Amino acid sequence: MPVLLAPEKAVPLKQLLSEANVVGIDCNPAPGHDWQGGPLIRGLGSLSSAGPDEISFLSNPRLRDQLPACQAAAVIITPAVWESTLRDQAPAFIPVLCSEPYLLYALLAQWFDRHRIAGLERGIHPTAVIAPTAQIGDGVSVGPHCVIEDGVRIGAGSRLGPHCVIGAGSVLGSDCLLHARVTLYHGVTVGDRAILHSGCVLGADGFGFAPDPRTKGAWAKIAQLGGVVVGNDVEIGANTTVDRGALENTVLGDGVKLDNQIMIGHNSQIGDHTAMAACVGVAGSTIIGKRCTLAGAAMTAGHITLGDDVHVSGATAITSSIHKPGRYTGVFPYAEHSDWQRNAAVLTQLSALRKRLRALERQLDADPE
Amino acid sequence: MPVLLAPEKAVPLKQLLSEANVVGIDCNPAPGHDWQGGPLIRGLGSLSSAGPDEISFLSNPRLRDQLPACQAAAVIITPAVWESTLRDQAPAFIPVLCSEPYLLYALLAQWFDRHRIAGLERGIHPTAVIAPTAQIGDGVSVGPHCVIEDGVRIGAGSRLGPHCVIGAGSVLGSDCLLHARVTLYHGVTVGDRAILHSGCVLGADGFGFAPDPRTKGAWAKIAQLGGVVVGNDVEIGANTTVDRGALENTVLGDGVKLDNQIMIGHNSQIGDHTAMAACVGVAGSTIIGKRCTLAGAAMTAGHITLGDDVHVSGATAITSSIHKPGRYTGVFPYAEHSDWQRNAAVLTQLSALRKRLRALERQLDADPE
Amino acid sequence: MPVLLAPEKAVPLKQLLSEANVVGIDCNPAPGHDWQGGPLIRGLGSLSSAGPDEISFLSNPRLRDQLPACQAAAVIITPAVWESTLRDQAPAFIPVLCSEPYLLYALLAQWFDRHRIAGLERGIHPTAVIAPTAQIGDGVSVGPHCVIEDGVRIGAGSRLGPHCVIGAGSVLGSDCLLHARVTLYHGVTVGDRAILHSGCVLGADGFGFAPDPRTKGAWAKIAQLGGVVVGNDVEIGANTTVDRGALENTVLGDGVKLDNQIMIGHNSQIGDHTAMAACVGVAGSTIIGKRCTLAGAAMTAGHITLGDDVHVSGATAITSSIHKPGRYTGVFPYAEHSDWQRNAAVLTQLSALRKRLRALERQLDADPE
Repeated sequence: MPVLLAPEKAVPLKQLLSEANVVGIDCNPAPGHDWQGGPLIRGLGSLSSAGPDEISFLSNPRLRDQLPACQAAAVIITPAVWESTLRDQAPAFIPVLCSEPYLLYALLAQWFDRHRIAGLERGIHPTAVIAPTAQIGDGVSVGPHCVIEDGVRIGAGSRLGPHCVIGAGSVLGSDCLLHARVTLYHGVTVGDRAILHSGCVLGADGFGFAPDPRTKGAWAKIAQLGGVVVGNDVEIGANTTVDRGALENTVLGDGVKLDNQIMIGHNSQIGDHTAMAACVGVAGSTIIGKRCTLAGAAMTAGHITLGDDVHVSGATAITSSIHKPGRYTGVFPYAEHSDWQRNAAVLTQLSALRKRLRALERQLDADPE
Repeated sequence: MPVLLAPEKAVPLKQLLSEANVVGIDCNPAPGHDWQGGPLIRGLGSLSSAGPDEISFLSNPRLRDQLPACQAAAVIITPAVWESTLRDQAPAFIPVLCSEPYLLYALLAQWFDRHRIAGLERGIHPTAVIAPTAQIGDGVSVGPHCVIEDGVRIGAGSRLGPHCVIGAGSVLGSDCLLHARVTLYHGVTVGDRAILHSGCVLGADGFGFAPDPRTKGAWAKIAQLGGVVVGNDVEIGANTTVDRGALENTVLGDGVKLDNQIMIGHNSQIGDHTAMAACVGVAGSTIIGKRCTLAGAAMTAGHITLGDDVHVSGATAITSSIHKPGRYTGVFPYAEHSDWQRNAAVLTQLSALRKRLRALERQLDADPE
Repeated sequence: MPVLLAPEKAVPLKQLLSEANVVGIDCNPAPGHDWQGGPLIRGLGSLSSAGPDEISFLSNPRLRDQLPACQAAAVIITPAVWESTLRDQAPAFIPVLCSEPYLLYALLAQWFDRHRIAGLERGIHPTAVIAPTAQIGDGVSVGPHCVIEDGVRIGAGSRLGPHCVIGAGSVLGSDCLLHARVTLYHGVTVGDRAILHSGCVLGADGFGFAPDPRTKGAWAKIAQLGGVVVGNDVEIGANTTVDRGALENTVLGDGVKLDNQIMIGHNSQIGDHTAMAACVGVAGSTIIGKRCTLAGAAMTAGHITLGDDVHVSGATAITSSIHKPGRYTGVFPYAEHSDWQRNAAVLTQLSALRKRLRALERQLDADPE
């Protein structure tokens, strides 16, 4: 496993779980097992790869067959798996019973990452260029070559990797983590605990032009005067772009999660806890509700509304508003190329085919649907 | 509204319009209204959000109902709207009559943005690394940590944000605006008044390989020796990439407007005033005419030609040349997932369905289309 | 042609070919032609653009008609073209016979690019920030404002352009070429001879979340503890992102070639010599075999497997595993918008149409296939 604490940094299992479980879910050793003074843990791994000083977990029931051979010191399982599978065996590992093994795994992974980050240097690197009018909170770290412009405010405990640029008047909350090379234009506001990945750009100009009568076909730029407002607990992936609004703000709600290379057009509003996988495109002035998911490479047209709890399949183009919760799909099924060719050729005749079918139905007095 | 001039910077309406209206379109107070010494304007907002020291505009007729409640000091409308709607009322704002409210709005937005930019620092930041052989025009601003390599030429009045890299021998015209973190490789030429957004990359290698016989399946790189040539008045969005040509140049004409995350493949040529929305992909050696538009997430195959005035709908794949102006579409309509599943299953049988239909037609002596 | 050596740097044709032809393919002057002391070459161009001090090549047979007017000093052709077309003429250029003109062109282009790169400055720029624990190999060049963190190892002869960031503990092989502004997170390993383009990001967090029971719809981040491992001879395009694994590594095999703006999700494994054109998206935990090609804007769903030698057409969504080599396509054919509208409307009725057809067939005792 790529992350493995040095032997002298190994943590007793009980302490690890106690520190990681910030949510307070149930989490106990299986009956007959004890973790007092129990095993020292150095890492977190999958059932098939975890070593004897690591902890693992079973959340996908199809991986149950991997339990007997698992080398881990401890494995998180549900009480049901304990009852049905492990109670009558004598597993070599300590079974940790938890109703939500996947969530506990997430929390453990967070713990290991916090441990890594805690080991990084802190402070303001001398090569950073920080405007005298910027307000930098307590315990903020600013990496090499960062540029922080006039009037910026950065909340306590935030950490900026190398090469971040925070434009004039922008505001960053507390305990944010900006990886290397994040760019905020001027007038962008980001809440607390944001995680922003390399190459993401918040606040570039939305794409707005008016026809310019001086030259046939030419465009006059509509300067984009709005901003971007991002809520708390938002994560934005590498090379994702969120454009500033034309006059109002582009808005991402609390808990929004954006993967890499997503494009959010100007004036759009994304509801709380909506998540989008990579390569999604949201055109301008789109309103997306709460708890939606857009799978990879989905896209939405502009000036439409998606209600709460709408789920869009990958590679699907949403071209009109959706008000009813549910899953929506529109992807052309792939096939071997020659099969595709044969069938695709008919696509341009569908309307004609329907007419021919109706003609036959009439001829036969068949009920025309 | 995010942009609001400080009260002491407010501008008389008449002066504002006179300075903003560089195009010289008609622009007058409505009969019976006067703007001598008239209201001081601090900002520009939508009908619903503009405050009493702002100017607004009506271009979308569906927003006409918002006029009565509008708080703005002045509203740009067409003479037709004045005649039909406002003449007989006594609006609280000054109606500004203009045949092109949307264009005048664009020009006003430009004015406010120029005002913001004029307040930024100018000059060459001491952390910039500039080759002695580079030629930097009068009044050029170079932001912190920029890198300008050998033989670069930058025209007068251009402004480079932090972290821009201009590769050896590249040329940038006058009055360009490069936001933070723009990258030009070597041998890239950009005209006057370009606006380049963060993360865009001009001149990365085109994607060219020849099979390498030394290893089954291996590829020998075709080094890309061409450049990129960009005309005047071009805007390129955040994280957009325009690759250098293999032997010749990749060319963007005058007035081309590219949104974010667009990919222009090597050797392509994009005609004057063609505009592309976000996430468009143009494969290599594609020739696109003048005044075309490609909506979001459209893509074109390589080695094809699109004539002038071709308009491609969003999420449409153009796989062959188009010589006739018009609008072209090829997007799979989305549906509720279960409906999609039911209908998509038939797609792989279309050719067979057509045969069955023909068989029935023959059987009935029906005219086979 | 954009690249043209200074006259005093011109190279005799024979020497040029000898130095460029590192593969050792056959390469001789046509019978009756001699290149002893032969022409001095300054550049490489297409048949139509190469000048009298350049070399050109014919690989696409459709360009054969351009041979007579070609101004180049020498042209690479196959022996077959010599026999069929040129033998009985007296071309003004020296015909260079080679069984693989396209490969020899690739090698010549590489020669010219090596020549350009050899002229660039070498050494560690004083503005680079390099951790004392980093190990920098012999002859490594580090550009302005680079940041190299703790424990990084960089192999001999590698060259980093301006603004590269190499995260803690990452490893870069020998003779790599990183253009400006490449970002490696911590724990990323890249093999020898990599070419990484501007804006690419290796090792950003994979997109993984578990439902967080504390708030309806909220997500708990699954910190991504795996790394990225990249083989030898890999090229990665501008603004492409390769995410780190959740627990294991994301893996790119030897000779993988990725164009611009590609997204490789976490835990994916890409086989040797697989090539992907721009804007491809590979979702997480996808396994792709050797020698595959994915054309532009193709995408794959997560948790699927593509075998060796699978070729995916552009704009095609692969939603299930493919074990059989071959070409696969799934793109909606475009049409004029009104035609598309008419036919697309029928798509939502395909299942119903099939039923109606079957009903007619039954009525006629037709074979319902």
